[in-house]
Amino acid sequence: MNYSIIGGSDAGISAALRIKEIDKHAQVDMFLADEYPNYSICGIPFYLSKEINHLNSLAHRSVEEILSKGIGLHTNHTIHSIDVANRQIAGNNRSYHYDKLLIGTGAVSLIPPIQGVDLPGVFTLRWIGDMLRIEEYILQHQVNNALIIGGGYIGLEMADALIKRGLRVTLVEALPQVLTSVDLPLAEMVRSKLQDNGVNVFVNTKIEEIESIPGKLKVHGTNDFGSENQLVLIAVGVQPETSLVHNIEKGFKGAIKTNRKMETSVPNIYAAGDCIETYHAFLKENVYLPLGSTAHKQGRIAGENMAGGHVEYQGSLGSQVVKIFDLVVGRTGLNDKDCEKYNLPYRTVSSELWDHKHYYPGARQLTIRITGNPDTEELYGAQIIGHTGSEISKRIDIIATAIHNNYRVPQLNDIDLTYTPTLSSPWDPVQMAAQKWTTINKGNREK
Amino acid sequence: MNYSIIGGSDAGISAALRIKEIDKHAQVDMFLADEYPNYSICGIPFYLSKEINHLNSLAHRSVEEILSKGIGLHTNHTIHSIDVANRQIAGNNRSYHYDKLLIGTGAVSLIPPIQGVDLPGVFTLRWIGDMLRIEEYILQHQVNNALIIGGGYIGLEMADALIKRGLRVTLVEALPQVLTSVDLPLAEMVRSKLQDNGVNVFVNTKIEEIESIPGKLKVHGTNDFGSENQLVLIAVGVQPETSLVHNIEKGFKGAIKTNRKMETSVPNIYAAGDCIETYHAFLKENVYLPLGSTAHKQGRIAGENMAGGHVEYQGSLGSQVVKIFDLVVGRTGLNDKDCEKYNLPYRTVSSELWDHKHYYPGARQLTIRITGNPDTEELYGAQIIGHTGSEISKRIDIIATAIHNNYRVPQLNDIDLTYTPTLSSPWDPVQMAAQKWTTINKGNREK
Repeated sequence: MNYSIIGGSDAGISAALRIKEIDKHAQVDMFLADEYPNYSICGIPFYLSKEINHLNSLAHRSVEEILSKGIGLHTNHTIHSIDVANRQIAGNNRSYHYDKLLIGTGAVSLIPPIQGVDLPGVFTLRWIGDMLRIEEYILQHQVNNALIIGGGYIGLEMADALIKRGLRVTLVEALPQVLTSVDLPLAEMVRSKLQDNGVNVFVNTKIEEIESIPGKLKVHGTNDFGSENQLVLIAVGVQPETSLVHNIEKGFKGAIKTNRKMETSVPNIYAAGDCIETYHAFLKENVYLPLGSTAHKQGRIAGENMAGGHVEYQGSLGSQVVKIFDLVVGRTGLNDKDCEKYNLPYRTVSSELWDHKHYYPGARQLTIRITGNPDTEELYGAQIIGHTGSEISKRIDIIATAIHNNYRVPQLNDIDLTYTPTLSSPWDPVQMAAQKWTTINKGNREK
Repeated sequence: MNYSIIGGSDAGISAALRIKEIDKHAQVDMFLADEYPNYSICGIPFYLSKEINHLNSLAHRSVEEILSKGIGLHTNHTIHSIDVANRQIAGNNRSYHYDKLLIGTGAVSLIPPIQGVDLPGVFTLRWIGDMLRIEEYILQHQVNNALIIGGGYIGLEMADALIKRGLRVTLVEALPQVLTSVDLPLAEMVRSKLQDNGVNVFVNTKIEEIESIPGKLKVHGTNDFGSENQLVLIAVGVQPETSLVHNIEKGFKGAIKTNRKMETSVPNIYAAGDCIETYHAFLKENVYLPLGSTAHKQGRIAGENMAGGHVEYQGSLGSQVVKIFDLVVGRTGLNDKDCEKYNLPYRTVSSELWDHKHYYPGARQLTIRITGNPDTEELYGAQIIGHTGSEISKRIDIIATAIHNNYRVPQLNDIDLTYTPTLSSPWDPVQMAAQKWTTINKGNREK
């Protein structure tokens, strides 16, 4: 059996490894557009911050390790067409037959329709190549100040990274808040943290033009915004990279539609990762939610099914976490904005809690927002913000696990969670937040 | 309605608070043998280590806060009898009527049947009074060396505490390993950590006699063990404190039997916490598993039901975590020894994993042991050891949540856990450990 995989990032490599685990004799060929198979693109900001110094550190696995698994690697090999009828893909002036095909082409950076995005010194940041170009530009031009357009995960991590590197940084967000994946009160804490660390933050500011002036780029925006910088990074989100894909059903933003076995509308063609619509475990419908952790899961599911298995993707909850300076922000499930978007009745209660018993040195405060259905008490989601060391990401994960299992908010109190005064409280903060939610919700309902 | 509560620690206070939440006008009287209501006895080692300096810091709530909730506090008030027929309790030369009674008398330290346990300078450590007596003795006798009998949670935390305080410490355990709540390989890592920090550790050594010699206590044990120290701490476990309880059904070690509503065999009498048998969520039977986190949950359930509710305790999984120096050890569900005790078929697979992406500074290794049923893949339990900052306790909690929901080991891979390179991997270590378990288990089954 011959398996071809287009794309060598998270989804592709996970599928390839799974196929070889199940079928040692499988012929697996992986085609990737660049020469960096299975690199951690989530690690890019830490290379540009100089927290990590070697490009190869970013490889989840070395090329040697991938080859040793018997996976055929075709680097710098862009596939430009899929012949669905004849089961062939083509690239680099030749074509290849496949029995099973995985499309794992990922996503590409969105570029806003404004003047000047093509100017030298203006970058997007998605792949290792982008990273190397930015690094080279910073060194060549002795860049000591930069403007970041977009206050999402990449924009925020890059603000942190460039400040750590010693640059002056301005960050501009068109919406009223940075980090739109969490609700406003938490986003405001993130904004304060950025400002405390010297980032010049503007919200409600839409960039309208980038202009080249001697030695610099002048950026104009709404509300008379103007700023001159040596480098401009556009980080306003991504869209699925499916330009290659025809005669296969697509959906939202051109993302490929798959079922939960990661099968596309065409037999023997699977798709996974940032190029597809993702099944949401709570909403029970497809959304576009590009995340590395999701790509790994979907790739593994695709690989198993391509090799004859029958497994289903159990869905995403949009579980995400980001560290910005010493602040950690995590979320899972639905937040207020999600509930409004999906027209769900909701109540959100915010709690300020200590990460461990206050009497033991080093206790830090967490803010936990729990969102649930005021009538059924169904647990919709949670957001937590606090400091590194407060086990925020894994506290979100407890709630994610609960949502996967259709918990009501008060049921969080039933979980036998670990306790020692140096790390938690007899009721974990997550449980105290659930108790507060339940009490307030009950009180409001009885009024 | 008149509610009486015997015991003012975790179970008692949780019940009292819950009763007052539900029934503002309830008459709630709490009787406690000492004068420290709702103190964190789990925090005692950190007072003796001098990491915390004020006795009152250990109070989960101040006396004023408890009184402000309308709870009647009767301190230094030992109840010595319960008149089940007439619904009365008696203590301090008077008796009190109750409509509903909660027994939350907790546990007392076990004292081994050896000579010399009554000598001055020999202590057990359970309550705040014990702590204060030890503190006074250390100061009065300028104690600079101590011997701890028992390598369980309290023994280990006290070894850590007394080393931090500058004492020379010897720790002696009768069994072949310290920390019997985890399997041997993890216990050996704990032993190394103790030794690296200067604790003189002996296992397989049973203490046989404590002898008074001038200015010291000479301790004799098996294998020619002998050691002279100024202070001896006995920390060999606890037993339920139910000496007060007659005409109510008791079970294992004299622990009170309750159903999952925390009702005893006698109408209108409830019991919760370390004085009862605890329902185990996985085993679906009662065990004796005294833990503060469990006492809080059971107290809250008892309180709600006493005030007319109908809630059931969902059970313990023996989830526990302890920090010893910079090491954290957590566990939930069943380990190898548990499986052997309950005669369950099991497979345990150990994995060494990084707590976050290795390329980002500060990555530390974790050891994760996953235990499951080799035939059904049912998830039995997990143990994790690693360093503070590696989110070990909340990683155990993800698994605890999964066990509460009857997961099979490979299902851990379906959970949408958060990821950022600074805090985890695209597959969380817990999931990589589950994958390794599944692969090895499948390989062994196919042989």
